[in-house]
Amino acid sequence: MREDTTAALDKLNKALESGAFQQVRFTLNTTLRPVEVAHLLEKSPPKERQILWNLVHHENEAKVLQHLADDIQADILATMDTDRVLEISESLETDDLADMLQQLPETVTRELLKIMDEQNRERIEEILAYPEDTAGGLMNTDTVTVRPDITVETVLRYIRRHDEIPDMTDSLFVISRKKESYIGILPLTKLLVSDPDITVREIMNTDIEPIPADMPDDEVAKLFEQQDLVSAPVVNTKGKLVGRITIDDVVDVIREDADHSLMSMAGLDEDEDTFAPLMKTTRRRAVWLGINLITALLASAVIGMFQATIDQVVALAVLMPIVASMGGIAGSQTLTLVIRGQALGHVERSNAGWLLNRELLVGGLNGILWAVVVSSVAIYWFQDTTIGMVIGMAIVINLVAGALAGTLLPLILKAWGIDPALAGSVLLTTITDVVGFLAFLGLATYFYG
Amino acid sequence: MREDTTAALDKLNKALESGAFQQVRFTLNTTLRPVEVAHLLEKSPPKERQILWNLVHHENEAKVLQHLADDIQADILATMDTDRVLEISESLETDDLADMLQQLPETVTRELLKIMDEQNRERIEEILAYPEDTAGGLMNTDTVTVRPDITVETVLRYIRRHDEIPDMTDSLFVISRKKESYIGILPLTKLLVSDPDITVREIMNTDIEPIPADMPDDEVAKLFEQQDLVSAPVVNTKGKLVGRITIDDVVDVIREDADHSLMSMAGLDEDEDTFAPLMKTTRRRAVWLGINLITALLASAVIGMFQATIDQVVALAVLMPIVASMGGIAGSQTLTLVIRGQALGHVERSNAGWLLNRELLVGGLNGILWAVVVSSVAIYWFQDTTIGMVIGMAIVINLVAGALAGTLLPLILKAWGIDPALAGSVLLTTITDVVGFLAFLGLATYFYG
Repeated sequence: MREDTTAALDKLNKALESGAFQQVRFTLNTTLRPVEVAHLLEKSPPKERQILWNLVHHENEAKVLQHLADDIQADILATMDTDRVLEISESLETDDLADMLQQLPETVTRELLKIMDEQNRERIEEILAYPEDTAGGLMNTDTVTVRPDITVETVLRYIRRHDEIPDMTDSLFVISRKKESYIGILPLTKLLVSDPDITVREIMNTDIEPIPADMPDDEVAKLFEQQDLVSAPVVNTKGKLVGRITIDDVVDVIREDADHSLMSMAGLDEDEDTFAPLMKTTRRRAVWLGINLITALLASAVIGMFQATIDQVVALAVLMPIVASMGGIAGSQTLTLVIRGQALGHVERSNAGWLLNRELLVGGLNGILWAVVVSSVAIYWFQDTTIGMVIGMAIVINLVAGALAGTLLPLILKAWGIDPALAGSVLLTTITDVVGFLAFLGLATYFYG
Repeated sequence: MREDTTAALDKLNKALESGAFQQVRFTLNTTLRPVEVAHLLEKSPPKERQILWNLVHHENEAKVLQHLADDIQADILATMDTDRVLEISESLETDDLADMLQQLPETVTRELLKIMDEQNRERIEEILAYPEDTAGGLMNTDTVTVRPDITVETVLRYIRRHDEIPDMTDSLFVISRKKESYIGILPLTKLLVSDPDITVREIMNTDIEPIPADMPDDEVAKLFEQQDLVSAPVVNTKGKLVGRITIDDVVDVIREDADHSLMSMAGLDEDEDTFAPLMKTTRRRAVWLGINLITALLASAVIGMFQATIDQVVALAVLMPIVASMGGIAGSQTLTLVIRGQALGHVERSNAGWLLNRELLVGGLNGILWAVVVSSVAIYWFQDTTIGMVIGMAIVINLVAGALAGTLLPLILKAWGIDPALAGSVLLTTITDVVGFLAFLGLATYFYG
């Protein structure tokens, strides 16, 4: 299959270049799966993407759309009229439809809900009632439910009456007759090996606690990972079964969360399309550069305080970036480790003391090691022992400062409800730059003064 | 359940502090799930971790071990004698056992294989024959197989003879009678709704292509994500079914890959234990600091070339970090975007041209914008138009250089088989530092000279 797809893509690229649109249309709609078409659109620059999208057949549009990243989905939906969006919405599963609706302007969403049939509307409204990043926003309403007092044989007969069971159904949910409260799950694997005369109550699994609809999606992901779930029941505050979450949607959450840390640390948005248009990208990045400029200006202001000393010993200007850079590198190692530890749920108040202690020692030890190296280089280079001593001391101070800031910043930011991955690196650089220049030039002023 | 666990953990911490080991032992072995105990060990500093591990009952050790991160697993296994490791190995599933064996010294592994019973040894050797990061290393051998020519009723009767079916079994695999070649899959959901008299051949799904055992694990993850799989068949080069991969192991691959990019960019190892002991951590980080020191020294060497100019205009020393810093920030935004794009499979040779073009334009536009701002600040600060003009030009040059390096470095490194996440950021900083100082001080020498 891999070879087939790669070959098909190569052919498609050539066809596109030579303008053989018939052939491209054929490949897009018959050879490739919708998810592969979505991937192809995601990796195409805007113009090419528009051409390709126009060649996708009407009946495939819905399937391709649901696999696209949010940003790109929103762009494409924005170009469609409401009638077409409605048509597409009819062929989507409720959770995918709810996701799509969240990309549309509210007026369009409301209009769509109005013209939808009642059953669908109710389902969608159930999902839309919960924020996108909670269990409720993640769930689907396609549960297959059974009562606890019926026999395995009855369950099997009941299931056989279905034409098909929803994808990713590994368990049936057992609910009470009266209030539709969740009671337990009945794995298909269990159903298949059980005595036909036994009741559901006797074989159902009540260990799996249902997921409250307002649980944040990252906690849902942790539950799935810890318990190796394929699907899990979602209940409202009254304990009524309202839907189920499947592992495919959880995998998306895991990917997005991981992506978020990586992208945030560079001041990028994880929803950002790799091929976003020029002006959109330029604007987003300008903001980040502006914030970092403030950091850089602060560092310059510190250096500015010591112009007289630099004027006297120009070697200081040559060596000062080393101090700032070593502190910044050591600090961001600590910062990254702590941010990752927070994401994994390893770092919390109870062990923060141990961690801070170790990081300060690591900073101190590495500070001493590299201080010796850098001072030797400095002494040899400028034939000046004072400068060697000064830079050595400054490096130790800055590496310890980096360790301190790298450990405490994420803890403080998180306690304040600010995303450490986003704000941490800028603040850390500010601290290691300011401390680095201050220590180095301050000590120099003292010893040469 | 969340509340229960949190409460249990709080109690456990208090009990541990007060030395009430009986109570801790009870919580560890009865209240908490093995995966929760593993998580608790992972977030404990070394000493506490050892105490906790000693309180885990023998019969729970295997289950806890298999949920631990590789680094910690290896540490704990190293303290056990071979007999105990063998005992533990007997209660593990083959894929988890194979993972564990890879953490042991080869002599121990060989010894273990020798004393294992034959059937287990063959299974383990089948898995160990493939590298850990391939489909073969990821697979389990617990497949449930059927022949294509039997009826649904026979399949149901055959399954009912099992006491239990392996976890995460959403499909049976259909294999040929003679060579055990993979033919197709039979989803349980399909089995449950089909006419009992129909044959497997008529309802099996042959769309899912089997995964070759030597496929890299990140490609396996992509297949699972694209096709929303719960389990998939693995075949050897002859097409014989050798095992199956389940989504829980794929989720681990996805998490590790994402973790890898984040940690590598800070020169950290993704297997690194958050609470690794002091000397181990210090040594690992020292290497990264050493590599970065070379970068810093290179930058200093560049500044050293212009000592005479700095001596003449000391304001240059004050402003020069701004140029290097802005280039570095802009460059790492591009670098992160491209590295992420590579991981998602979006960036490849066919669209690299478009991307480079856009990044150069983004760099140029943001360069001009911030050049205007910084030059105004510089002119106002030092009352010197020349310095404003010089820093403006240098910023534009360095942001374009950052964009160029940020786009090309990951492409070149990947083509050379070097991990862009690991080497990219150091090389990028080297380039933006050198170009930044060279452009700024070079232009200054020209204009003031």
